[in-house]
Amino acid sequence: MSVPYTWIKGGGITTPAGFLAAGINAGIKTKQKKDMAMVVSECDADVGAVFTTNQVKAGPVKVSMQYARNGKIRGVVLNSGNANACNGVRGVTDAKSMADLAAEAQKFRPRQMLVCSTGRIGLPLPMHKIEKGIKKLITKLSPDGGDKAAEAIMTTDTLQKTCAVQFSIDGQKVTIGAMAKGAGMIHPNMATMLSIITTDARIDKKTLQKCLQEAVDQSFNRISIDGDTSTNDSVIILANGKAGNNLIKSYHPKLDIFRSALFLVTKKLARMIVEDGEGITRVVELFIKGAANDHEAKILAEALVRSPLVRTSWCGGDPNWGRLMDVIGYAGVKMREELVDIWLDGLIAVRGGVASNTPFTKLRHAVRQKFFNINIDLHLGKGQYNLLTTDLTEAYVTLNKGE
Amino acid sequence: MSVPYTWIKGGGITTPAGFLAAGINAGIKTKQKKDMAMVVSECDADVGAVFTTNQVKAGPVKVSMQYARNGKIRGVVLNSGNANACNGVRGVTDAKSMADLAAEAQKFRPRQMLVCSTGRIGLPLPMHKIEKGIKKLITKLSPDGGDKAAEAIMTTDTLQKTCAVQFSIDGQKVTIGAMAKGAGMIHPNMATMLSIITTDARIDKKTLQKCLQEAVDQSFNRISIDGDTSTNDSVIILANGKAGNNLIKSYHPKLDIFRSALFLVTKKLARMIVEDGEGITRVVELFIKGAANDHEAKILAEALVRSPLVRTSWCGGDPNWGRLMDVIGYAGVKMREELVDIWLDGLIAVRGGVASNTPFTKLRHAVRQKFFNINIDLHLGKGQYNLLTTDLTEAYVTLNKGE
Repeated sequence: MSVPYTWIKGGGITTPAGFLAAGINAGIKTKQKKDMAMVVSECDADVGAVFTTNQVKAGPVKVSMQYARNGKIRGVVLNSGNANACNGVRGVTDAKSMADLAAEAQKFRPRQMLVCSTGRIGLPLPMHKIEKGIKKLITKLSPDGGDKAAEAIMTTDTLQKTCAVQFSIDGQKVTIGAMAKGAGMIHPNMATMLSIITTDARIDKKTLQKCLQEAVDQSFNRISIDGDTSTNDSVIILANGKAGNNLIKSYHPKLDIFRSALFLVTKKLARMIVEDGEGITRVVELFIKGAANDHEAKILAEALVRSPLVRTSWCGGDPNWGRLMDVIGYAGVKMREELVDIWLDGLIAVRGGVASNTPFTKLRHAVRQKFFNINIDLHLGKGQYNLLTTDLTEAYVTLNKGE
Repeated sequence: MSVPYTWIKGGGITTPAGFLAAGINAGIKTKQKKDMAMVVSECDADVGAVFTTNQVKAGPVKVSMQYARNGKIRGVVLNSGNANACNGVRGVTDAKSMADLAAEAQKFRPRQMLVCSTGRIGLPLPMHKIEKGIKKLITKLSPDGGDKAAEAIMTTDTLQKTCAVQFSIDGQKVTIGAMAKGAGMIHPNMATMLSIITTDARIDKKTLQKCLQEAVDQSFNRISIDGDTSTNDSVIILANGKAGNNLIKSYHPKLDIFRSALFLVTKKLARMIVEDGEGITRVVELFIKGAANDHEAKILAEALVRSPLVRTSWCGGDPNWGRLMDVIGYAGVKMREELVDIWLDGLIAVRGGVASNTPFTKLRHAVRQKFFNINIDLHLGKGQYNLLTTDLTEAYVTLNKGE
């Protein structure tokens, strides 16, 4: 059965029923750019969340991890321009204050607001600006505030990243909306990925968390711009039940509809993040198969996208499969040189470990497109993995080297 | 006891007694650059060798690995402009022919010449040019040929890399000479490190191999320009005994003198390679200590030099310790954020995981030098490791992206 999913044009976190949002300038960034955002549900919501695996976790990550474990929550307050990471005990205290102030001012129960930060590492949060910002945000909360919130979490992103999808469960219209900020940095900041997802679905908390984890594994965890896992990565989903569908639980027959919709949303945002990667000129989808197992396929894919030689060759539009073979050889996975096949956007480039007969000009044409695929078959087992990534350009270096 | 080691100005592979060398243009490179080299000992020599750990090994690596295991050898024939890698069975056959032709033409016993290649991957060796080149090389062999040989193995190197050191063992003057080519690539080629070391020392083959392996571990294995291990890396040492010293064996009291001299030579070459790294503007020496063990210290050092965010910040002269903290958190080693100390060229930047009081301008000055150190102490155990590396620049991308 094919389920009709409808993308809502211009949709975002306030598209699902019962969500308000706002985005303002609170003076955290030096320029007059928006730098604080808030999203609030009109009623209690269940929450699912996935955070960075980095052992160095920013203050807001520690606080949100703790608060998300409790009962229902009401929303999230966010800032850009300061990551509040590596600030020690003070960082945690400040993050807690930021969340608690936002809850208190709206008369929510304690710990009902989560908190996210993105931006410069190692500088204390300017708490007076944050306090004023929270008050201002609350006055601006609106069912049309999704775009402004999305704008306020941007750092080096050149485009706002929002989407919303509608579908029906048990005859009830259900909506999922989302915003994200990309894997970019601003001087002298850190790549940070934030995403807030809202839905009016009624769904059991455990099931919600499971769906989110799966969706993240298949989307945000399969993109790479520079291989650096940040201290602040947070993906948070709020489900307020306003759609009035029968409660979705793990054994709900229509669970797959919700799960697929959520996956569509995270995959779309993940692609937006990659396509808006810093200084990039090409987007490359890498498919590994025939590895000894899935884990080895993943190791290989990640080694390939970490290689500056591989990624600069993509920048140059150079069908340099020798650099791929080199990484395949040193990645530390089982491989036999004479079994390796490589296709560049569908054209066989390497067969059995040596050059195919495909003319160089054809291969070059394939890798000079803005979007292309690379398929690698190790012909050893059933392990497979795919990853969406970008080239490494001079512009990336310029953007990230600081002043 | 401090041993007097004397660096020989302009010295190289023909500085030790009984070695001849040559470098010529054989037409392998399109330009009129030298592209073939040969080094030969006037008498049988013992050999030690260390090769790439990449599972994809070039034809010449496979052949030299095999030949080096046999008895005495006489020399090495090398080419640049073609790596003879990923050429399947033909690649091995061609490498064998190259080595065997060089031995035969000089009436050496079979398998007495080793072979190295560097350059483009995946194109067959032009064997007619190689054959002619070998004949020409033999006519040019001379005790003054060291420089020409060193020139002929250069790829994107901007400087020849040679050195020689003299010292005495049992009252006999002993010399070690060497040449290397750097971790650079030429379009659309692969980073490849080659080094040939010659010595007139009399030394037992097993001891020679052990000394070489140790020296390589402490020098060539502790440099990183882009984290890509090539298919062709080869370090070969020839010892012809012409110095007439008492045979150095593992229990020889003067073994340390030789071992230290060899280490001085490989360390000097390793530093030359890094300082001539493609497009670099800074050379950074990274010292990790206080890790749970040496292995974890190594993992962390290698993760740091693989991070584009860390290496672009060096390029910009930006004391961005947040990016270091980020890598320390995700590198997969034991760490406690609140214990981490970081010094930038001797100035404390991070104490106990948070910003120190050192003014930003001072830190910035420290990392705007061409050469600086970074010390990281995890305060967990006794594990330590050091690594010499470079920044990531726009020029690196330009050089490696191809046309």
